[in-house]
Formats: sequence, C-alpha cells, structure tokens
Amino acid sequence: MIRAASADVIGELASGQRRPLARLLTRIENGDPSVRPMLPQLFATGHGAHVVGITGPPGSGKSTLVNALITEWRRRGRRVGILAVDPSSPYTRGAILGDRIRMMEHAADRDVFMRSMASRGELGGVAATTWIAAAAFDAAGYDPVLIETVGAGQSEVEVARLAETTVVVEVPEMGDEVQAIKAGLLEVADIIVVNKGDLPGADRAARQLRAMLSSAGGRVERKPPPVMLTTAISAGGVVALADAIEAHRAQSRTPIEARERAVSQIRRALADLAARRAAESSAWQTTVEAVAERALDPLTAAERLLDR
Amino acid sequence: MIRAASADVIGELASGQRRPLARLLTRIENGDPSVRPMLPQLFATGHGAHVVGITGPPGSGKSTLVNALITEWRRRGRRVGILAVDPSSPYTRGAILGDRIRMMEHAADRDVFMRSMASRGELGGVAATTWIAAAAFDAAGYDPVLIETVGAGQSEVEVARLAETTVVVEVPEMGDEVQAIKAGLLEVADIIVVNKGDLPGADRAARQLRAMLSSAGGRVERKPPPVMLTTAISAGGVVALADAIEAHRAQSRTPIEARERAVSQIRRALADLAARRAAESSAWQTTVEAVAERALDPLTAAERLLDR
Repeated sequence: MIRAASADVIGELASGQRRPLARLLTRIENGDPSVRPMLPQLFATGHGAHVVGITGPPGSGKSTLVNALITEWRRRGRRVGILAVDPSSPYTRGAILGDRIRMMEHAADRDVFMRSMASRGELGGVAATTWIAAAAFDAAGYDPVLIETVGAGQSEVEVARLAETTVVVEVPEMGDEVQAIKAGLLEVADIIVVNKGDLPGADRAARQLRAMLSSAGGRVERKPPPVMLTTAISAGGVVALADAIEAHRAQSRTPIEARERAVSQIRRALADLAARRAAESSAWQTTVEAVAERALDPLTAAERLLDR
Repeated sequence: MIRAASADVIGELASGQRRPLARLLTRIENGDPSVRPMLPQLFATGHGAHVVGITGPPGSGKSTLVNALITEWRRRGRRVGILAVDPSSPYTRGAILGDRIRMMEHAADRDVFMRSMASRGELGGVAATTWIAAAAFDAAGYDPVLIETVGAGQSEVEVARLAETTVVVEVPEMGDEVQAIKAGLLEVADIIVVNKGDLPGADRAARQLRAMLSSAGGRVERKPPPVMLTTAISAGGVVALADAIEAHRAQSRTPIEARERAVSQIRRALADLAARRAAESSAWQTTVEAVAERALDPLTAAERLLDR
C-alpha cells in the first residue's frame, strides 16, 4: 500500500508537474513520517542533478547573484530548482522572505521552481531535510538544484558539504572576508565570488583572498579554489561563473568526491536516527534523570541507550 | 588496572595540583581513548561547579570582559577555570592565541587555570570535548568554569546550550546585533551584555535589544534575559554582571533546566558514538560505496549500520 503510494508520488514527480513536487517538499519540511518509505526509490530515481550550494553573508548581494545565475541557466535550457534554506533562528525569517520577493522575476517561469525552507530548530534537521529535498528536485527533473543558505555559521558549512559544488559569495569589505574565514566557509568553497565587483575595493579583496588561499596551500591538499569577480546587479561576470560551476561539476564527479559526500550524508543520518531511537526508548526518561543528577555521564548514557 | 589509574588521576585532580589537570585536558583535547573509562568517575566526582558560557563576535571586547570577571571572581574568593574554545576553522587559530596574550594578567595566579582548545574539525567534536573538559575543571575544584567561545555560529549555540548560564556579549553597532540574532545566540542567552558601554550608541543598542526581546516574548516561554551595560576596559558594570551570573545560577538549578542540559549532552554523545561505531563496522566501506553510487539512500544506510 505504502509502496504503491510512494511509486505514485514518484511517477507524478517524474512527469514534471509542479504540484506533486510542492506537496512532497511540504511533507519533507514537516518531517512527515510517510516520506521515510519513499527514500530508497526517491534517491534511486534521481537523474544525478548537479547540486550547487551557494552561501555568503547577508548584504553580499547573494540573492541578486542567484537571480542572474538562474537567468543564465535558463538561457542554457536548464530547468532550475532552488532551495533557500535558513538554518538560523526563527527571528530572521523576515529576511529570507524579503529575499524571496526579489525572486519574483522568475515566478512565471514553469521551469524554475523556488522553495524556501525554515529551520525546525532541531540539531542537524536542516541538513537532513536539505538532502531529501534536493533528491526530490532531482527526481522531478530539475538540474541544477541550487541550495542557497543565509549566514555564515556551522550549519551553512554542513549544508555546503552536502553540495557537489559550493560557491561562497563575499563582498569587498574586509569585515566580511573575516566572517567567511571564521565560519570555516573558505575551506568548503569550490568557487569564491567577490560580488559587487564595481565597488572600489573589489580587486584588492580578490587579490587578498587569492594570496590567503595560496599561502594556506601547504596544509590543504587540493589546489586553491578560483576567486571570481561578479557584479550581479548588471549580470557582470555571471556567464563566467556559470562556466566555472559547470567545469567544477565535471571535476567533482570523481569516486573520491562522491564518497566524501556519502560519508557526510550518512553521518548526518546516523546522528538523527540515534537521537530519535534514544528518545523513543523506554529507558529515555530514567537515563536523562540520571545524567541530570550526575549519577551517570552522558557518554555512558548514550552507550546504554544505543545498545538497547 | 585502568580503574586504578583512573582513580589515581582523579585523586590527583582533587588535590588541587595544576599539572594533573593540564595533562588530563591534553588527553581530552587529543581524544585519547584512555579518557573514556574515567568518565563515570570524573563526572561523579565534580562538586557541581557553575558552568558559564560566554560568547560574542570578535571585536566585542569579550576577552577584556573575561579578564575583568576573573578579577571580580578572585576578589570573591573563587577558583576560576577558563576554557577558551574555538569551534571555527584552523585558519583562525591566530586570533585565539592573540586573546590569550591578554590573559597573562592572571598567569601567576595559581587559582586561575586557563586553557585554550582548538577544534579538531570533527562534527560535534568541540561540544563533546568541552563538556568533558568542564567536568575535569569541576573535579579539580574550579568553580565557576567559564567556557569562552569565539564567533557566532551554530557550534557556539551548541556549546552555549551545554552551559548553565550563557552570557552573550554585544557591541553597540547594529551590525553585531544582527550577527547574534542570525546565529540564534539571543535565544540561548541568559544574560546579554552590551560591552563598550562608553561608546555613543551603547544606551540605544541596549534599548533596542530589550525592545526586540520583549516583543518576541509571545513566542518564547521564559521571560526575556536582562540586557546589561559594561565597560570592560575600566571594569565598569562588572560587579553587577558577576551578581547577575550568580543570580542566574540560583534560578537555573531547577530539575527542568538540569534535564534540558542532560538531553543536549546525551544527544551530542549519541551522534559521536553512532558515527564512530558505523566507521568501525565491517560494512562501512561497502555502505559508503552504495550511497556514493546512489544504490542506497543515506537514511537506509544509517539504519543498516546502526542495526548491525
């Protein structure tokens, strides 16, 4: 029964209709348990869409850049899925809605599917939801699937790890460079974009970033990511950026890269699964009490819960 | 054999000597497996030290404030442990070392024990290491144990959740307020400090924060945290801050709060444990391959690994 329903949903998705995808994304976002049995089929149905992460601090013009990229991809005949993820607090939900309004340009285009997802506040919930949603876009024939995150925290790094190609957007001011460095975003960047390239400090910022990245080369095994200049507002540099993303796709389809992504996805799923099972265990309440009263240390508690 | 060694270490810790604590912290930081069997005893030996988290963006004067707080606590006859945690990338290790130099004021005081810990880059590794290290400080008779984090990302939020009392430091500029809001830090704050209270915008920033926090009150169950002004450089407001931290300790020693902390600690331990066991499983390599080739979805993979 569930199998039939699951096959139906996936058949509808594959037909390219928008409504089945919209409904499935809502179920994914809500953590609907009926999504679980679909996963093996959903995951296997995908065509292998290019999952592109794009992140950067607020004010970096990221939304405008995403808009320009969509236009370029549409020009190249691609059907584009966009998942805007806000891993930060509910306090900021307004900001991401503001971004959405700017996306209206593509609202009438049936080959562009944009969806915002807010955090449910659960540890790791965002990343798990994101990969399932990306698989749904893929099964519905969207390629690339763009995952846009707001901010520069640890969750963004985690989301970025799940993408095949991660674009980190910076603005010329040094303050924002520091933000990306602090969050460890430069380490997961496959392409770095200095946006607002028409601002006075843009060339200098790009040079500084390149110097920083090449001096770190001794410790980092791979070659430093390219640093590109764009001026999203006039679509300057966007064709070159789309080309660079395409070039990285070709590079990243190696067995090693695929394995690294798989490891990240499995770890995330393990953490979620272990937390859920422990909370459903009959020993959960007494174990929590014991840790709260310092009669048990958390690691021993975790071992006991996992071994039941 | 291991038990005897473990009891020895804990006996030495309890004697108040510095070297056994320094050695144990190194073993904790390195993830030395010999620490594992000590945990139940280490956790049970603690006197219930007040674990205070302090976080805020770079440039907020947090280190100077910590310095002033230590001076105040020493005046009150407390032995102070400080754990400076950098959950961000190794790129920033320089910054935290810079902070350390400023701490030298207390270097000669044997009742102040300061230790920096860098991230090992493992998911969740920082938080797990932090609570074990805090338990070690506690067993060695330090109270309060101050956990200082740099930055405003998701890891800071996680570390802050492990503390009983979390102090979030802000500076008057609006830009930094936004940073704390974005990272969800305000939601975990028990006390908010607007530092550099001598700057022109300080009063206005404090008012704005208070207004923002009370307008959010409808959704948040607890009453909004106090917003305090300090001028760390001249120790202005530091006595009042130490009092507020003390007052929060009394409030936070409720069974509900203790349970919430226990849940966070157990979840973190579960994620680490599940990841380690999966990686040690004989099916690990083939499972990763299957996910990388899309023959298996990550959640099913996680279930199989956890069920072995």
